[in-house]
Amino acid sequence: MLQSGLFSKISKEFPKDEESLNSRLLIRAGFVKKLSAGVYSFLPLGLRVLHKIVDVVKEEMNELGAEEMLMPSLVPKAAWERSNRWNVDVAYKLNSQFGGEFGLGWTHEEVVSDIAKNFIFSYQDLPKAVYQIQTKFRDEKRPKSGLLRGREFLMKDLYSFHADEADLNRYYNLVIGAYKKIFKRLNLEARVTEALGGAFTKEYTHEFQILSGAGEDTIIYCAKCDFSQNSEVVKARAGEKCPDCGNALKKSRAIEAANVFKLGTKYSDAFDLKFKDKSGNSKPVVMGSYGIGPSRIMGALVEIYHDESGIIWPEAVAPFQAHLINLSQKSKVKSQKLYQKLQKQNVEILYDDRDISPGQKFAESDLIGVPLRLVISEKTAGKVEVKQRNSDKIKLVTEKEVIKILSSGKG
Amino acid sequence: MLQSGLFSKISKEFPKDEESLNSRLLIRAGFVKKLSAGVYSFLPLGLRVLHKIVDVVKEEMNELGAEEMLMPSLVPKAAWERSNRWNVDVAYKLNSQFGGEFGLGWTHEEVVSDIAKNFIFSYQDLPKAVYQIQTKFRDEKRPKSGLLRGREFLMKDLYSFHADEADLNRYYNLVIGAYKKIFKRLNLEARVTEALGGAFTKEYTHEFQILSGAGEDTIIYCAKCDFSQNSEVVKARAGEKCPDCGNALKKSRAIEAANVFKLGTKYSDAFDLKFKDKSGNSKPVVMGSYGIGPSRIMGALVEIYHDESGIIWPEAVAPFQAHLINLSQKSKVKSQKLYQKLQKQNVEILYDDRDISPGQKFAESDLIGVPLRLVISEKTAGKVEVKQRNSDKIKLVTEKEVIKILSSGKG
Repeated sequence: MLQSGLFSKISKEFPKDEESLNSRLLIRAGFVKKLSAGVYSFLPLGLRVLHKIVDVVKEEMNELGAEEMLMPSLVPKAAWERSNRWNVDVAYKLNSQFGGEFGLGWTHEEVVSDIAKNFIFSYQDLPKAVYQIQTKFRDEKRPKSGLLRGREFLMKDLYSFHADEADLNRYYNLVIGAYKKIFKRLNLEARVTEALGGAFTKEYTHEFQILSGAGEDTIIYCAKCDFSQNSEVVKARAGEKCPDCGNALKKSRAIEAANVFKLGTKYSDAFDLKFKDKSGNSKPVVMGSYGIGPSRIMGALVEIYHDESGIIWPEAVAPFQAHLINLSQKSKVKSQKLYQKLQKQNVEILYDDRDISPGQKFAESDLIGVPLRLVISEKTAGKVEVKQRNSDKIKLVTEKEVIKILSSGKG
Repeated sequence: MLQSGLFSKISKEFPKDEESLNSRLLIRAGFVKKLSAGVYSFLPLGLRVLHKIVDVVKEEMNELGAEEMLMPSLVPKAAWERSNRWNVDVAYKLNSQFGGEFGLGWTHEEVVSDIAKNFIFSYQDLPKAVYQIQTKFRDEKRPKSGLLRGREFLMKDLYSFHADEADLNRYYNLVIGAYKKIFKRLNLEARVTEALGGAFTKEYTHEFQILSGAGEDTIIYCAKCDFSQNSEVVKARAGEKCPDCGNALKKSRAIEAANVFKLGTKYSDAFDLKFKDKSGNSKPVVMGSYGIGPSRIMGALVEIYHDESGIIWPEAVAPFQAHLINLSQKSKVKSQKLYQKLQKQNVEILYDDRDISPGQKFAESDLIGVPLRLVISEKTAGKVEVKQRNSDKIKLVTEKEVIKILSSGKG
């Protein structure tokens, strides 16, 4: 991609109406644009990152054997009333001129249970799991954490259907395993944390919490073992001994990036979702639901991976693999040729072909945060100056080596 | 994919609350599920088709050099008021408990113009084009055409920005060319048809109309040349001589699958989107907008490609390339092996591994409409019975040939 052709541009200043670090950086660097509080457009640069996060999530969901589907946002009032969730605070409600009242989907247990009724009849139809990558709407009181809490945001929600609690428990642990893989692939350390179920369930649930001062949650955790509780659970306290290993517990702000819920039969009861077991007895289907927020994860990545000059994207989600910068008129042909060669190798490359000062190019490159910077100028004498965004070391290498480094990073 | 594991199942009967052929077939065969009038869930089978249509559309948009982005659905009242479109019939409106009034995005000229203001300053920043694949909401009075007219539906909307009318005209024709390619790849014959601009513009615009009795539009067209007008234009009449070639004009119902609009400066004026020309004069940006409906196209494909037994998907959009059907217990191992071999070759294959009658398997296979049917039984004696969905000819071929046919169809 030619930088001169990019739809977005770097802003000279940080936005004045944003408090959170992630949205301040993402807006200034041209990844997102705010439409209203908690509502953002994803500009081409930002959508590239979001798609990469979504791709990782989808791969792991498919690996689990879950099937992708897509449910609507216009969910009729009657569906919410069956589960007693019409009067939930976060619901946006609207009246159709012609067709009754709707609540915009902020989660989809109701819709998916109603659909599953058409396809689940017998124990032989179980277990089943479906997921979607879909936009959710939640009327949050005062969203001020950028992509960490949106009124409109992208969600991956997975729903599973089982014959009994034991099978739900088995699958619940599989999903926790899949989520761990996702966070590992995204270079994020997420702690599996005990929490309350909110509007979903009265049992404890598990959240994936990323330690960060920007988080809106507080967790009590052990740095030596896996113990971690959301402070809302109020069992453990910082300073106390870890109930698992005896080490002193710590307290930290954290970003809830995913959660898993055992729903039991709450929604299958409400929607009369039953199956016949081996003995021919009719039983309610046992359900689980599992959420992960790709747009929130994008915000979390910025909170974790940045420095005073800008964003530092991990390779797995970077909008481009490399940022090629040409510094002088005389080296323009050479840069152009390398750009074309890398494109031919399917390397995702952003090429700064503009006639602006080297200082501005470097500053903008640091803001955007592509992992590898390639500089060509008169001074590089036929070679390419290579620098990683998260390091100060500069190496002078041949074109051939650059192509080798970048092509080997693929697939 | 094992058919026994598929989330959806074929229904024994057509849905009772649907009038349109496309939704009746798609619901019965397990591609979509109705949530309320004009609002459908895409089940795993249906989402596979929808994704393939979207992929074709995206490839041609990227080929045009347009950049993909993603805008929100929660569009503030103030944005609609600037363009005088707050009180448009199709708008769903809602009140946030905390943050004012919103109209759900039924189109995005307002949002994209407001964003473009941050990035377009000079003639050197033009032309630019961005598109999105995004869910649109329209409060339609009485949606009864299935996927052909939804209250919630998927849309590809492209917006272009130009220095003058001449450049807009140049790009407008490029987009018409890209749309022609898209319809050709999707096996759809769409006539470029002169029409009124509706809420968008008072100039004539162009629609891509697919001849079909299920369509909600009426067009007057010439079967010998390219002349085509929406009957709302009311210039030409059926039976009259074609103004271009003199042949007698025909009349037909048609499905509007895409449209292209020259917006001029309507939205750039409303949003104060200006640029400095070469002489330093400030001028309003000239805009175009171009829509294509992937979910509507899915409905149109079913209207065009079906017979009394079910859907007949064109290869480019079929949920699977082939449907492998095992007919007897004794041939199960052979079928299983072929299934695995085809999967290894990345052939998208649906394998009916269930223990139900051959008659039911064939009937369901015809309903689902995968282009190629492969049958293995005791009778096929080590070979595979191959039949295309749109033909009655049955061929007996070796496994090797099957693998060759299906692998060569790829990439």
